[in-house]
Amino acid sequence: MRHFEDIRVGDSAALGHHTFTAAEIKAFAARFDPQPFHVDEAAAARSHFGALIASGWHTAVVGMRLIIDHKRRREEDERARGEPSAKTGVSPGFRDLKWLKPVFAGDTIAYASEVLEARPLKSRPGWGLVFTRHTGTNQAGELVFSFIGSVFVERRPG
Amino acid sequence: MRHFEDIRVGDSAALGHHTFTAAEIKAFAARFDPQPFHVDEAAAARSHFGALIASGWHTAVVGMRLIIDHKRRREEDERARGEPSAKTGVSPGFRDLKWLKPVFAGDTIAYASEVLEARPLKSRPGWGLVFTRHTGTNQAGELVFSFIGSVFVERRPG
Repeated sequence: MRHFEDIRVGDSAALGHHTFTAAEIKAFAARFDPQPFHVDEAAAARSHFGALIASGWHTAVVGMRLIIDHKRRREEDERARGEPSAKTGVSPGFRDLKWLKPVFAGDTIAYASEVLEARPLKSRPGWGLVFTRHTGTNQAGELVFSFIGSVFVERRPG
Repeated sequence: MRHFEDIRVGDSAALGHHTFTAAEIKAFAARFDPQPFHVDEAAAARSHFGALIASGWHTAVVGMRLIIDHKRRREEDERARGEPSAKTGVSPGFRDLKWLKPVFAGDTIAYASEVLEARPLKSRPGWGLVFTRHTGTNQAGELVFSFIGSVFVERRPG
């Protein structure tokens, strides 16, 4: 992870993509969001969606996994170059999560991020708070998912 | 589910509680949020949290499951009384999700909800949009988690 000082508003990254299979849509929803249109093809066909769709939380946590994998690859690159990696804290939360379109079984969602704001923290010396818009876009180019996350990022020492 | 007309601002519900074990914290995080303080006790002990903590997304989706279970119990009660149940749509999103305190292994989180706003929809006749604050509180009475969700709810026929 880059240090706070090296992060610029507008920095963007492609995080990778994921194809949602019917089996994993149903397995996730059976555990965490067992609504008929997430767990049962026949019920989903009768719903106004017309087919099985992923839980919105499923779309979100798959994106989270890709964010972490991306961060890890970046840290490996930094290590390979002999550069120090900044620590990040957990997220204090996020705002404006939007599920804009259904994610159907078989859809491939491409996840991306863009830095919106980076502010130093008076209350936590040595750290900054970075706001990032995370998005998911389906294979037809439609934005299906978006939220603005925030995370604490370490400042460069000294 | 009650129809839109029967939902009042201030209506609240206890949704149930959940104890987060170390095993399930690690299993969830290994799949969706593999940060050291979520998947590895030793690394968590060295982090500023001092012990294993649940992924914030894990705290959120366990709450989602309790919301659905609560809705289902309400629908069973309505069926038992011979009353019709209102349909609900998916959620268009939510706002202001906050992870306020860490959830440690062994913590028991009580989830609750309170209706903040209920507005009829001109754009979707027959439906209203209901905003609800969902919270999670630990065994010490500390608020650990909160978000404002929104969901489409059917209006009473006629």
